[in-house]
Amino acid sequence: MEVVQVLHMNAGSGDVSYANNSQFQEKAIVMAKKITEEAITDVYKSLCPKTVYIADLGCSSGPNTLMEAGELVKAFDKARRKMGHQSPEYAVYLNDLPGNDFNSTFRSLPQHQEDFKKEMGEEFGPCFFAGVAGSFYGRLFPANSLHFVHSSISLHWLSQVPKGLEENKGNIRVAASSPLSVVKAYHEQFECDFSTFLKCRGKELVTGGRMVLYFLGRRCEDHVSSYNNVLNTWEFLAKALNDLSAEGVLEAEKVNSFNLPMYRASPNEVKMVVEKEGSFSIEYLDNFMYDLENEKHVKDPGNFVVNSFRAVFEPIVAGHFGEGITEEIFKRQKTLILESIHELDKVEFFNVVSMTKKEVIFF
Amino acid sequence: MEVVQVLHMNAGSGDVSYANNSQFQEKAIVMAKKITEEAITDVYKSLCPKTVYIADLGCSSGPNTLMEAGELVKAFDKARRKMGHQSPEYAVYLNDLPGNDFNSTFRSLPQHQEDFKKEMGEEFGPCFFAGVAGSFYGRLFPANSLHFVHSSISLHWLSQVPKGLEENKGNIRVAASSPLSVVKAYHEQFECDFSTFLKCRGKELVTGGRMVLYFLGRRCEDHVSSYNNVLNTWEFLAKALNDLSAEGVLEAEKVNSFNLPMYRASPNEVKMVVEKEGSFSIEYLDNFMYDLENEKHVKDPGNFVVNSFRAVFEPIVAGHFGEGITEEIFKRQKTLILESIHELDKVEFFNVVSMTKKEVIFF
Repeated sequence: MEVVQVLHMNAGSGDVSYANNSQFQEKAIVMAKKITEEAITDVYKSLCPKTVYIADLGCSSGPNTLMEAGELVKAFDKARRKMGHQSPEYAVYLNDLPGNDFNSTFRSLPQHQEDFKKEMGEEFGPCFFAGVAGSFYGRLFPANSLHFVHSSISLHWLSQVPKGLEENKGNIRVAASSPLSVVKAYHEQFECDFSTFLKCRGKELVTGGRMVLYFLGRRCEDHVSSYNNVLNTWEFLAKALNDLSAEGVLEAEKVNSFNLPMYRASPNEVKMVVEKEGSFSIEYLDNFMYDLENEKHVKDPGNFVVNSFRAVFEPIVAGHFGEGITEEIFKRQKTLILESIHELDKVEFFNVVSMTKKEVIFF
Repeated sequence: MEVVQVLHMNAGSGDVSYANNSQFQEKAIVMAKKITEEAITDVYKSLCPKTVYIADLGCSSGPNTLMEAGELVKAFDKARRKMGHQSPEYAVYLNDLPGNDFNSTFRSLPQHQEDFKKEMGEEFGPCFFAGVAGSFYGRLFPANSLHFVHSSISLHWLSQVPKGLEENKGNIRVAASSPLSVVKAYHEQFECDFSTFLKCRGKELVTGGRMVLYFLGRRCEDHVSSYNNVLNTWEFLAKALNDLSAEGVLEAEKVNSFNLPMYRASPNEVKMVVEKEGSFSIEYLDNFMYDLENEKHVKDPGNFVVNSFRAVFEPIVAGHFGEGITEEIFKRQKTLILESIHELDKVEFFNVVSMTKKEVIFF
C-alpha cells in the first residue's frame, strides 16, 4: 500500500483521534514560533506583497490546523503594522495528503473566520483559506506563487518505505540491531525525498520567499544513541509485533515486511541536502530538545504518550495488518509503555531550519 | 438553522447519494459547454496568463466535480494550442459550502490527476487543484487573482430563506397560491444575493476576466406558468408535508415555517441585477429548456426524478424536520411523483449568462 493512501492522522474527535491528542505537536509549534516570526518579518520587509500567499504543508486536521495557520498570518500582520502599512490580503493554503480529514477543518472554518476577524480587528485582511490535497514530495502550487512556506512535524515522513530493508528483521525502523545496509537505505530515501521537496518548493516560492521547516530529528550523527528516549515508542510497537509473531497471531513475514516510512535526519544531513540541491540558502539551522517532564499540564505521561502515538500511527498499522488486529497491537504496546514509562528519558529532538529562496541565475 | 450549515448534497456513494444521482447535472454541463468554451477562448486570447487561475463555484462532490473542472482546463488548453503557445500552469479552485464532502473529491484526486495527465499529454500543465470552503455570497479569493469563474446549477440557491413568508402557508416556495408579498420577498432576496455575488467576483477577477454562470431559471416573467413541470417536484414535497401535517404527524407550525432558500430568476431579472451592480458587461444571456423525454438513457424517469431530487434536498429536509421523519416524507413524495409522472411535462429551464469583468475606472 502506498504512503499517500494510508498516511493520515486518526479522523474525528474520539479518545485516540489526532484532534484530541495533538498537544505535543502544539508545544512544538510554540518552540518554533520565534524562528518563524523572524523569517516572516524578513520576508514581509523585503517583498511587501499586496496579497501574502502562505502554505502550511502537512497541516493535518484538528484544532492545530487553523491555529498554526492563524499564527503565521498574525506574524505577517505584526510586521506590516511595524512598517505602518495597510493590511495586505492573505491566501493561506492548508496542505496534507488526500486521506487527511479536510472536511472537519472546513466545517470549523466559518467559526474560526469569525473569531479571527474579531481578534485581528477591522483593519485586518481579508484572509482566505484553501485546502490542497497531495504529497509535498511533488509540486502542489503554481510557479512563483508563494511568499512563505511552513511545515511542522511532517518532514520526517518519507515518500515511501525504502527498498532493501529485508535484513531489518525484528525492527520497524533504524534501530540498534539494524545492519548498515538498512541505515543506508533509509538515509538515501531521505536524501532523495528532501531534495525533491526543496526542488518543488524552489519552483513555487518567489525569489526572496522564505521557508521554515520543523520536524523530528536526531541530536548527533550516531543513530542509536539519539534514539534512546521514551517518545520513540516505536521500539515498543516493534516488541508488540514481534511478540504477536512469536505467538503465531501475526505471520512472521507480515511483521518482517513492516517498516515505517520515517527518518530522523541529523542537522548536518539536512544542511548537506539543502546545499547540494541549491535552490535555498540556510538562514538558521538548529536541533533542539523537547522534554515531556517540563510539561506540568501533562498529568499522566504514560497515557499521553500512548494516545499521541496511536493517533498518528493507527492508520498506518491498520493499513498493513488489518483493522481486526489493530486494537490488540496497540493494547500490547500500551502495556509495554506503561511498564517502562518511569525508567526512560521523556525527550524528543527536532530540527528547525529557516531558508531563503535564492535568485535563479540563468547562464 | 443557517443555509451555510445545512446546504450540501447527500454524501458518499449510496442509492440516493448526490454522486450517483447527478446525471441530470451532467447533461446540463454539456449544454452549457459551447458558451463556456467561447468565453474561455476569449479570455485566453486577451490575457495569455502564464498561470491560469480558475474557480468553480458550487462544485459539489462526486464524479462531476473533477470532470467539470477538467473541461474548463481542456478549453484553455485548446485555446493555447490554437495560438501555438506553450502550456500555462493551472490553478483550479473547487468551491462549495463548508458542509460539502470535500474529502471524497480529494480522495479521487490522485487517480484523476494521473488519468488527466495521460489524456492531456506531456506538453500540458501542470494543473493544481485546491478546495475552498465558504459561501459564494461572500469573498472567497484574493483581489485580482482569478481569470475565469464558472458556476453550474448553484446560483438558484439563496443565501437564506427570505424574511416575511408567514403568508406562504401550504407552500414551500413561490407557488400558484403564494401572495404577492411572498413573490416580492423571494425576488428581493435574489436581487440582494446576486448583487453581492457579482460585487465579490468583481473584486476577485482581473480586468477582462470572464465568468459563465448556469442555474435554474424560469422562461417568462410570470412565475406560475413557468413552474408547471415535473422536475419542479417541490409541489409534491409540499403536498407530502401538508398531508403529514393534516394527519398530525408533523406540527402545522413546523410545516408552515418550512420554505426553500431557492429562487428561479427570469433572464430579465438577471440582466437587471448585472446592469445595476456594474462590475460586469453581459456577453451572452439566454434561457433554455432541458427535456427529460429526450434522454434515451433514462429508462425510468420516475425514479430518476425521485432520486435526483432527494440527493439534493435530503439534508435540508432532515435539517428542518429531523432525521427520524425524513424517510417517510420522501416516501410519500415518491408515491405522489410516481402516480403523476406520465401526465406531466418533464422539462426544466436554465439561465446561462456569460460576462466580462469591466475595467475599474477611478474618478
